Amino acid sequence: MAPLPKSQTTSLATSTAEDVFIRDQSLCHELIGQLSFTEMAFFLVLGRKPTEAQRSVVDACLVTLMEHGLTPSAITTRLTYTSAPEAMQAAVAAGLMGVGSLFAGTMEGCALLLNRIVAAGAAAGAAAEAEAEQVAREHRAAGLPLPGFGHPVHKPDDPRAARLIELVDEHRLTGDHTRALLALSRAVDRVYTKHITINATGAIAAALGDCGVPQQIMRGFALISRCAGLVAHIHEEQAKPALLALWEAGDRAVLYDGKQGR
Amino acid sequence: MAPLPKSQTTSLATSTAEDVFIRDQSLCHELIGQLSFTEMAFFLVLGRKPTEAQRSVVDACLVTLMEHGLTPSAITTRLTYTSAPEAMQAAVAAGLMGVGSLFAGTMEGCALLLNRIVAAGAAAGAAAEAEAEQVAREHRAAGLPLPGFGHPVHKPDDPRAARLIELVDEHRLTGDHTRALLALSRAVDRVYTKHITINATGAIAAALGDCGVPQQIMRGFALISRCAGLVAHIHEEQAKPALLALWEAGDRAVLYDGKQGR
Amino acid sequence: MAPLPKSQTTSLATSTAEDVFIRDQSLCHELIGQLSFTEMAFFLVLGRKPTEAQRSVVDACLVTLMEHGLTPSAITTRLTYTSAPEAMQAAVAAGLMGVGSLFAGTMEGCALLLNRIVAAGAAAGAAAEAEAEQVAREHRAAGLPLPGFGHPVHKPDDPRAARLIELVDEHRLTGDHTRALLALSRAVDRVYTKHITINATGAIAAALGDCGVPQQIMRGFALISRCAGLVAHIHEEQAKPALLALWEAGDRAVLYDGKQGR
Amino acid sequence: MAPLPKSQTTSLATSTAEDVFIRDQSLCHELIGQLSFTEMAFFLVLGRKPTEAQRSVVDACLVTLMEHGLTPSAITTRLTYTSAPEAMQAAVAAGLMGVGSLFAGTMEGCALLLNRIVAAGAAAGAAAEAEAEQVAREHRAAGLPLPGFGHPVHKPDDPRAARLIELVDEHRLTGDHTRALLALSRAVDRVYTKHITINATGAIAAALGDCGVPQQIMRGFALISRCAGLVAHIHEEQAKPALLALWEAGDRAVLYDGKQGR
Repeated sequence: MAPLPKSQTTSLATSTAEDVFIRDQSLCHELIGQLSFTEMAFFLVLGRKPTEAQRSVVDACLVTLMEHGLTPSAITTRLTYTSAPEAMQAAVAAGLMGVGSLFAGTMEGCALLLNRIVAAGAAAGAAAEAEAEQVAREHRAAGLPLPGFGHPVHKPDDPRAARLIELVDEHRLTGDHTRALLALSRAVDRVYTKHITINATGAIAAALGDCGVPQQIMRGFALISRCAGLVAHIHEEQAKPALLALWEAGDRAVLYDGKQGR
Repeated sequence: MAPLPKSQTTSLATSTAEDVFIRDQSLCHELIGQLSFTEMAFFLVLGRKPTEAQRSVVDACLVTLMEHGLTPSAITTRLTYTSAPEAMQAAVAAGLMGVGSLFAGTMEGCALLLNRIVAAGAAAGAAAEAEAEQVAREHRAAGLPLPGFGHPVHKPDDPRAARLIELVDEHRLTGDHTRALLALSRAVDRVYTKHITINATGAIAAALGDCGVPQQIMRGFALISRCAGLVAHIHEEQAKPALLALWEAGDRAVLYDGKQGR
Repeated sequence: MAPLPKSQTTSLATSTAEDVFIRDQSLCHELIGQLSFTEMAFFLVLGRKPTEAQRSVVDACLVTLMEHGLTPSAITTRLTYTSAPEAMQAAVAAGLMGVGSLFAGTMEGCALLLNRIVAAGAAAGAAAEAEAEQVAREHRAAGLPLPGFGHPVHKPDDPRAARLIELVDEHRLTGDHTRALLALSRAVDRVYTKHITINATGAIAAALGDCGVPQQIMRGFALISRCAGLVAHIHEEQAKPALLALWEAGDRAVLYDGKQGR
Repeated sequence: MAPLPKSQTTSLATSTAEDVFIRDQSLCHELIGQLSFTEMAFFLVLGRKPTEAQRSVVDACLVTLMEHGLTPSAITTRLTYTSAPEAMQAAVAAGLMGVGSLFAGTMEGCALLLNRIVAAGAAAGAAAEAEAEQVAREHRAAGLPLPGFGHPVHKPDDPRAARLIELVDEHRLTGDHTRALLALSRAVDRVYTKHITINATGAIAAALGDCGVPQQIMRGFALISRCAGLVAHIHEEQAKPALLALWEAGDRAVLYDGKQGR
């Protein structure tokens, strides 16, 4: 751990009787009514307001990730909410804890690979192509999954990835990270000798990267988006409780293999 | 618990090889690039897209709640992140668990009172005024805190509440819930014989109510907003770790009162 | 909230270079190797060491609650662990969040009723019988579930409850709370005109009450016990991953009811 | 991920109308009243009952870890409980999420090193000594912290570690893992040319290892123990709320470094 300064500081917020200041701007006069949620979140996390193009692309990434049906996260939130309806916040929190290495981790993992390709040669030239080839070869040789590539259902191509890459281009934001992703995609098809789709987390890693979001906080954007999705699952659960069906389904799916019969 | 249907259903999402459908709309063709985060969250949770005026007001509410400095939630997230940096999602989740009755609960509690006043008389007439008076009297007589009113720092008035009420009016969304809040505010000043400010959670309860957000899911909007705030605390912690200072501060604040000296 | 003392104090722990003191006892010389887990937990939470009889009964309560198969809590822990294996602690935490009002809450709810009967007449005489009758009548009239009574599978009697009540008696700990539970059981059978079993949470509420555990911290003992159960589910998941089967079971159990087909 | 069997199985629990079976034993006739909490947890997690010596050592490890004052975990639990007292389970869960790599991770990390030394030579002979030397050299050369060694307060020796090693010996359980720890300790003192104490997590890694607890589930035992500690913090918080003092302490410890004054 790095040595700590003698007194800690924050630049996020302070308040007076008359106002609240967020990163030195007046909440009441410069932020409320002026910024959308996405602009405010970008400003608060990164310390600068997004351009209109960046705002559009970040919104598109957040829209893409928000909901994907009865994922483990959504099941967790619904089960927890019905077990403890007194604490909606705990149900959302329980669901968010599943936004881990299996899901959000692939976005971060892909972003690390893109950063490596960008570092090798500004993403556009022969050096970047060579690094992309090297990345693909390493993963194939080690039998490792390649984060940002492949999807069990969306074949031959993940339509969300295609739409996001197109959208980044429409907003003239295609930069080193998107170019690195496309170079990696070409290398993957060559090295694996078949087409493997760029998936949604791969496209988001590139899109957020080209909007200036650092790799180490990307998972935070997934959390923000999924938080909204989990709230929707709770509201549906409030109207149509699904707990017992889920429990029974789990019960039927798992057999006791001891000696005592049921 | 109500009897459950034989097979459970969800109307949130389904997917095919070529697309994902969220509440029957094509994610790739009708949502990504078309909706902002706030529009998508509103659509997903409530099943209908907000009007432009509703979108503005919901954005303003989410902007208002996002950040308030080193609250217990933010401290919790920072402590958990530094203790377990391998799981950013758990740190955000831990912080969200503090968005409970002390904070988000006052929003819900205020919304319940507003619903009661609205039910008494369409919020505008003498019946609504009488119900507001009754609400204030009951709380005063029982010595109960009145959710949505009062603030330890923002005196005489919470500037966020004033700005939100003004914004709702600018967007011509002032409806029964805001009128009920204003009636309750007048009643409070009379019954307590002093001015007590409408606070931010009170104004948000009215604003979300007039946007058609049901009381029982309002806490979800607080969770979405705070989730973004907690991500910002993690990103600041990544750059400037504050754990040890917080721990030591806690240590100094709490004295051991057993017989064994330190 | 009660007014706070100017400086906070704790009596749980302090440390020196040579030792740690827990509630004024030397961890190294008076606790490690001297106390079992259950004795230490009882001592730490309540500030006094249990008698041997109390230790036996608390152990029996903790053993009873530890495991009950694929409950919502266990499903949640398994799903979260497989989604984020980097953070076992988050998976256990997610599962514990389901130990809420549906499950642990019935223990607390039953304890409240027992306290009410005890308060009415030292639990043994006619006044206690009358209060038990009153409790049963109120719940039946209001159509409310009676916490601590009834079980969907264990009919006519929950064998865990019978065993715990017997065990409390063997250790000569039967006191006001157990007598109140038995009085309530008799009243329930009369008022509902059929036999409804005392269930495990009812028996535990009485047993912990007769061991001197206050009602407001009883849920904590359920959390300690279930924590161990959830660790076992993780260890089984490490050897035999069940995530996909559970996810697919949930998927099959929930049908999309929008217009877009799957 | 390993290929999944077609139908999932569990060997933890099943139930009939008359009984519950945990790993094929009757809960009511063979476990309740027969096993202590620690015996039951060991049996449930590992599938076999501990010997009396193993039970004593595991109890000692759980007693050692239970409480250490106002750690980040305990602060988190107290803050969350006061923010959301409706959900004690969420407060405990929030605190457990801090039992991550900084704390429990050092136990697991030390266990990995001990396993490596054991694998090199049955822990007793020259090969084990050489591997211990190699481990110490690698860590020193890389400037990495050595898990299980060193303590900021307990100098020159952590008294808990000494007590645990002694206790393992008293119960004649000193085996490969404890011998590997002692070999590593000698190597550390030589390689770093100064005495660095074995700390509590190092001693527990060896003690649990010699009781047959696999390295990958050791964190689970830390969670069980800390869960009880956090329940004690909640019970103290119920009697003497500390939230405001902690919040204010945090507030004072962190200065806003933007341009807007407070």
